[in-house]
Amino acid sequence: MPTDLKDCLAECGLPCALEAMGDRWSFMILRAAFNGICHFEDFLDALGIARNILSNRLSRLVDEEIMQRTVCADDRRKAEYRLTDKGIDLLPALLALRQWGEKYGLGVPSNPLLADRQDGLPIGPIAIQAHDGRQLTWHDLQWLDRSEIGAPGDCCN
Amino acid sequence: MPTDLKDCLAECGLPCALEAMGDRWSFMILRAAFNGICHFEDFLDALGIARNILSNRLSRLVDEEIMQRTVCADDRRKAEYRLTDKGIDLLPALLALRQWGEKYGLGVPSNPLLADRQDGLPIGPIAIQAHDGRQLTWHDLQWLDRSEIGAPGDCCN
Repeated sequence: MPTDLKDCLAECGLPCALEAMGDRWSFMILRAAFNGICHFEDFLDALGIARNILSNRLSRLVDEEIMQRTVCADDRRKAEYRLTDKGIDLLPALLALRQWGEKYGLGVPSNPLLADRQDGLPIGPIAIQAHDGRQLTWHDLQWLDRSEIGAPGDCCN
Repeated sequence: MPTDLKDCLAECGLPCALEAMGDRWSFMILRAAFNGICHFEDFLDALGIARNILSNRLSRLVDEEIMQRTVCADDRRKAEYRLTDKGIDLLPALLALRQWGEKYGLGVPSNPLLADRQDGLPIGPIAIQAHDGRQLTWHDLQWLDRSEIGAPGDCCN
């Protein structure tokens, strides 16, 4: 039995992502970071997480380069934890989970919500799209081995 | 300290989703289910997961109505576990995590991959979109309290 998720389904990015994230608290820490929280004590207050668990998860997120730890310029006893570009790239996954939880779990819309700065309107649902932007459902999809894939345009030849 | 993720950030769908999912193995079970696996022994083989953990996670997914358990018509000693519509709705979140893992962890594209039945081409990246379909990055977004949100079209008035 593999002790590491990476050992199963080797050619899939999902176990890699799950290994990097750690556990559910890591998702909640990222959510707080996307809300602008960056100090250890503020994560503690916002999440009600145990100090040792927070410390462990933040270290892991820093090791995975999902967050970056820097010492505060104005108080060198304090550290700041900020999302890296790699961390920011997790936003679609977090939002997809949040929207699902909203639809099935919470029963009411999440608050606060993310809106487009340009027009102040809430973002749309995170959806699966074809290469040309058409929205696809599960029933529109098929699994293919990478060797079976043509280049865009092949279908028209 | 809350013992339940639902106790923190009450107005957010993310902890609800994480509570429903359980842990990382649940994501891997769902991934296998999306690959067409439906029997207990086949999940065991595909994931290399311990029997008791698989049993526990499948029960949880059934309790959460993410999967449905039915007895096989041709062999009543065997059960089938299939994704419900609620489970299928987790696909964007799984794919967003998978694509992230592919970009940062795996280094090579996942295989097999999901393609559009219509043209046989791989799906596009899971992305954040405005209500009108424009693609948005984190830097295009702002948090708003629900009370601050206008209806679509308000920006033009």
